[in-house]
Amino acid sequence: MPYVNIQVTREGTSPGASATTPEQKRALIQGVSQLLLDVMGKPLASTFVVIEEVDLENWGVGGLPVQEFRAGSKVP
Amino acid sequence: MPYVNIQVTREGTSPGASATTPEQKRALIQGVSQLLLDVMGKPLASTFVVIEEVDLENWGVGGLPVQEFRAGSKVP
Amino acid sequence: MPYVNIQVTREGTSPGASATTPEQKRALIQGVSQLLLDVMGKPLASTFVVIEEVDLENWGVGGLPVQEFRAGSKVP
Amino acid sequence: MPYVNIQVTREGTSPGASATTPEQKRALIQGVSQLLLDVMGKPLASTFVVIEEVDLENWGVGGLPVQEFRAGSKVP
Amino acid sequence: MPYVNIQVTREGTSPGASATTPEQKRALIQGVSQLLLDVMGKPLASTFVVIEEVDLENWGVGGLPVQEFRAGSKVP
Amino acid sequence: MPYVNIQVTREGTSPGASATTPEQKRALIQGVSQLLLDVMGKPLASTFVVIEEVDLENWGVGGLPVQEFRAGSKVP
Repeated sequence: MPYVNIQVTREGTSPGASATTPEQKRALIQGVSQLLLDVMGKPLASTFVVIEEVDLENWGVGGLPVQEFRAGSKVP
Repeated sequence: MPYVNIQVTREGTSPGASATTPEQKRALIQGVSQLLLDVMGKPLASTFVVIEEVDLENWGVGGLPVQEFRAGSKVP
Repeated sequence: MPYVNIQVTREGTSPGASATTPEQKRALIQGVSQLLLDVMGKPLASTFVVIEEVDLENWGVGGLPVQEFRAGSKVP
Repeated sequence: MPYVNIQVTREGTSPGASATTPEQKRALIQGVSQLLLDVMGKPLASTFVVIEEVDLENWGVGGLPVQEFRAGSKVP
Repeated sequence: MPYVNIQVTREGTSPGASATTPEQKRALIQGVSQLLLDVMGKPLASTFVVIEEVDLENWGVGGLPVQEFRAGSKVP
Repeated sequence: MPYVNIQVTREGTSPGASATTPEQKRALIQGVSQLLLDVMGKPLASTFVVIEEVDLENWGVGGLPVQEFRAGSKVP
């Protein structure tokens, strides 16, 4: 009975989108549940998947909020 | 000094509500803190409880977003 | 379909025990699942509970590992 | 830069194994990272995957530790 | 490649603010990433920091939602 | 009343150590609690810090277990 938590930044990654789309969420849920069935024999019905979208200013990498990190900028 | 994280879908479960109500949240906080006191002797003041409400499209079970799973439907 | 994560320090809280006992774990699982049924109408079968025991040196409070905090000591 | 946390019970699911094998862990890591690339265009190098194995007595479902739940037994 | 999750109540702690400010978030990200470099030699670029702001009514301590706990009140 | 969860790989990062040392853990707890006091005015006593050490084979990056990723090898 696996539990999977997926955290991604809240931003669009498909054309015209400003956030993860319902289709992308469905594909993540489907894909990771199927993976646990294929690799470990876990029945689909016993896997919970929780997707959390995190605002860009709340995600840090390289010691900076992710947008500043991507911009290669260290301007405060 | 326990820490308890409770994740539930964001939807109403009491009459007329479209989300977990403040009363339900208080009851969860009270109940789980009391449980840790009763079972393990943890003082109420040393237990943190964090409730997270998760949008229905972000919660997966059975390889599907929860609403589709409940509907027994696999229609995209 | 709630998911509950309970983190406690790994230490005995019942006579003669040096860790959470299986009976205590069962009582936590039972109690929190019942709470979600009582407060929010969530069926027992749809609640997952995961208990994590955390070594004392890995738990901090008051800016100190928990054992030093309890002892009121800041000796290294 | 996604972060994925996968929690599974600590038990063997392949022949002769009493826990998740290194090969299964590699397959989970590979599969979920590839999924995030395919669905959301996230580069493999920017995805972290953390697998947590949870002792059977620490995982509850149906108001019982998972082994009792599977056995359909409520005997203490 | 550390992952750090920081959960705080959603409320202002600087003059005139009603939530954690972008400057405070940047300082948290910077400070904790630097700490992991100083203490454990972890390169800045390999540390992820995720800040989660939790609504006051979703945070419990002392068996009560945090605002009631602070007010020392048990009034419903 | 912040809660901070720090996940690191279980391996030595100081001379002769094969895991995070108690001194490093104390420094992490102290540093992150102080940071929350300095940046947000949170009293030391109201911050919980939980450190989780994750076995190398359970941590993935770049679609591989971390040791293989570091070795630049994709050999199974």
